Amino acid sequence: MAGKMMYDVIVIGGGPAGYLAAERLGHLGKKVLVVEKNYLGGTCLNVGCIPTKSLLNGAKQYIHAKEAAIFGVHAEKLSVNWNEMLAWKEKTVETLRAGVAAQLKRVKAETLTGTGVLIVDGAKRAVRVGENVYEAGAVLVAAGSVPAMPPIPGASGNPQVLDSTGLLSVKEIPRKLCIIGGGVIGIEFASLFYSLGTEVSVIEMLDEIIPPMDKDHAPLLRRALKGIDFHLGCRVEKIDGGKVFFKTRDGKDASLDTGPEGVILMAVGRRAETASWGAGGAGLDAAAKGVTVDERMRTNISGVWAAGDVNGVSMLAHSAYRMAEIAVADMAAYLEMRNDTARPGLPGPANVWRGNAVPWAVYSLPEAAGAGLTEQEAALRGIAVKKAALPMTVSGRFIAENGVKAAGNVKVLADADNGRILGIHLIGPYASEIIWGAAGLIENEMRVQDVRELIFPHPSVAEVIRDAVWSLGES
Amino acid sequence: MAGKMMYDVIVIGGGPAGYLAAERLGHLGKKVLVVEKNYLGGTCLNVGCIPTKSLLNGAKQYIHAKEAAIFGVHAEKLSVNWNEMLAWKEKTVETLRAGVAAQLKRVKAETLTGTGVLIVDGAKRAVRVGENVYEAGAVLVAAGSVPAMPPIPGASGNPQVLDSTGLLSVKEIPRKLCIIGGGVIGIEFASLFYSLGTEVSVIEMLDEIIPPMDKDHAPLLRRALKGIDFHLGCRVEKIDGGKVFFKTRDGKDASLDTGPEGVILMAVGRRAETASWGAGGAGLDAAAKGVTVDERMRTNISGVWAAGDVNGVSMLAHSAYRMAEIAVADMAAYLEMRNDTARPGLPGPANVWRGNAVPWAVYSLPEAAGAGLTEQEAALRGIAVKKAALPMTVSGRFIAENGVKAAGNVKVLADADNGRILGIHLIGPYASEIIWGAAGLIENEMRVQDVRELIFPHPSVAEVIRDAVWSLGES
Repeated sequence: MAGKMMYDVIVIGGGPAGYLAAERLGHLGKKVLVVEKNYLGGTCLNVGCIPTKSLLNGAKQYIHAKEAAIFGVHAEKLSVNWNEMLAWKEKTVETLRAGVAAQLKRVKAETLTGTGVLIVDGAKRAVRVGENVYEAGAVLVAAGSVPAMPPIPGASGNPQVLDSTGLLSVKEIPRKLCIIGGGVIGIEFASLFYSLGTEVSVIEMLDEIIPPMDKDHAPLLRRALKGIDFHLGCRVEKIDGGKVFFKTRDGKDASLDTGPEGVILMAVGRRAETASWGAGGAGLDAAAKGVTVDERMRTNISGVWAAGDVNGVSMLAHSAYRMAEIAVADMAAYLEMRNDTARPGLPGPANVWRGNAVPWAVYSLPEAAGAGLTEQEAALRGIAVKKAALPMTVSGRFIAENGVKAAGNVKVLADADNGRILGIHLIGPYASEIIWGAAGLIENEMRVQDVRELIFPHPSVAEVIRDAVWSLGES
Repeated sequence: MAGKMMYDVIVIGGGPAGYLAAERLGHLGKKVLVVEKNYLGGTCLNVGCIPTKSLLNGAKQYIHAKEAAIFGVHAEKLSVNWNEMLAWKEKTVETLRAGVAAQLKRVKAETLTGTGVLIVDGAKRAVRVGENVYEAGAVLVAAGSVPAMPPIPGASGNPQVLDSTGLLSVKEIPRKLCIIGGGVIGIEFASLFYSLGTEVSVIEMLDEIIPPMDKDHAPLLRRALKGIDFHLGCRVEKIDGGKVFFKTRDGKDASLDTGPEGVILMAVGRRAETASWGAGGAGLDAAAKGVTVDERMRTNISGVWAAGDVNGVSMLAHSAYRMAEIAVADMAAYLEMRNDTARPGLPGPANVWRGNAVPWAVYSLPEAAGAGLTEQEAALRGIAVKKAALPMTVSGRFIAENGVKAAGNVKVLADADNGRILGIHLIGPYASEIIWGAAGLIENEMRVQDVRELIFPHPSVAEVIRDAVWSLGES
């Protein structure tokens, strides 16, 4: 039995970090087991990015159809069918889940449904699933995260209070929705339901929505999300049924009532899932922020790596992908060393985590996206910057598709000393699809002059980046 | 008077090359005159990219609304109003034209309406407009291009035969449209009118549409444009009223009849405009392909540069922009030298034309775009390649927004010897906005491993590039 149960790598968690690691390990010819307690694909695929994007796509189609008369396109009696929207979302999720399963099968990675518990016993690394123990040369913990639920009186057990997972399967479009938390998740749900006709309010404890956004851009996005009622700098104190009580910025008592049918979304963030898989018993350093890892995703215990939300380094699915690849490279090198076989060409040494060019996107209407530093982060690091901000109306395509009054902005930051591009920030259409190129040029340490020499397709909204980079020299 | 009429640079033509050159020269403090015989903005803004994109946007909104039922979004009666579409297009063009004028004014560039004629007289460089002669230290010829009109019997003077400019202002959506020429212009019009309900056929002399496209991708795009009737390898022989007579690939006689109300679009390409501005009299090398220039846009006559379509190097608006900047850098250096003043920091030496990473896009439905080499171009240059092609269904966002049956593909080519990315080709949504990043990474000479380490936002369609680059290693 022992031989049968021996793997090169066991992965705890079948989300983006877990399934991608298994896929890459499979390509390297490693024998892999993925232990997932729920569905392959994890939060992102099942109850996170993918379902929200499926629904937001429908919402955008609805709004676009509603506003198309200016282009000469007319739709009579527009309506949305929430059940059909949910069905499309479900279909999408099922398709992608099947895709992950097929991909794992293709690389001969085994999968197991259950809660994997890490076992560290001397030199032995293993994972217990129910009654069975599976040994491995290396273990990758990719247990993900769970929605944070702050202990607000009246929240727990209240059927009107939902987390994002719950809101993704409400039976009807709520008439009123109060969102506690103005981060990315809160803003995407706000945009989704506002587009569908819901009266939406957002209560955010901090002074501005989406804290990591550049402080020039966050208010622009907030104003572009017109119709949504924002309460900034407000602390929620209790909930009673559909009513939310909070203190305003200037210390006054206030409340918002969603009524007996209303919904309150708790979207105050997510926390690393460190409870279920035996971190403590195994002696792993796991702070409140997540499992402690180095730049190669190594934990404090040799033979154990942690990638994705569980380490709290960057809680984004695409960060998880990259971390998984870094861990895979390091695990592969470790296994080689351990097995004392000579196999050259492992990508080990090149693979370390660099957080300087992680792009992010908010898929609201309009979208927002960014890569690199904000002006505030540059200031914190003591970097003198040149900056340029332009409305997207400098783009011919933007005007052709949206007119001159639509919301859109680009902001570019460059190092004042050496001209290196430090950050690119966008609000407007296609932002989420444009931003990868920004990550690329920051990663390549391109300077102002380099980007000026780059040819952008015309007409495109992406050209606003070029315009902004040219106008950096004008100030 | 002579002093008053002396400019640093006179620009012949107010299109993308001309107005951008004037803008950049203005920022450098140069005294500039732009001579434009028609409207500022040139072909691209007035009768090219911008009006077609304005109309295609409406067509896409219409099709999206029509197909949104799968997402749960319903419209009872959908209709398009062609006059309103044209009005939106006109409004867009007027807005952007005013934008160009304002931008030129901002940098104190003067403009003049009229046909500028180049005068080269010994060391003197000047431009005649009507009765007046304006002298300059340097002249930039940016006279653009005109639609090619092959001498097909029955085409000339036939009211049913239009060029792209004519088709942009037809009074009604034609019931039948026959497009002669399956290049970018032909395909965009085909997609536009097919979307609006027109019965569209395309006759292309070559064996495939859009000759510069990768030969794997062109047929994919053609098949994705389903409903359009393509006739490849066919040579048009004559036109009679609304009827087009042609020889098929295997030499048979055939014809297509658009009827008495039908429209025939002549879209066989554009040729450099070298007739109107005195190229011959000035002694400029101007072949059929356009004015001969070197990598800095210098013509055979010192003090005269040529940028944009007029030199035939790359007939794209964004190539024109870049050429204009290269010419500006060189002209500025030339003027400095001539004036014998010491002003350091001119960008001259870095600015040469590199054609290796010019992106292009077709704004059809679906879109197509590319940057760098096609597989066929690599073969012609004797470069051994690694290649990967994937359907866009590998992208979660693509599936969430289009389903599994939608058309979409990515193809990536890398140098088999050194791993450098040589070409990236896309068919599918957002292609035109994704592609700038591909130009960036080709320009940066990124290798396969570099792109693998790049973080793309998830979920995005752009991620297909990452997937393709990873799968390069698998084959």
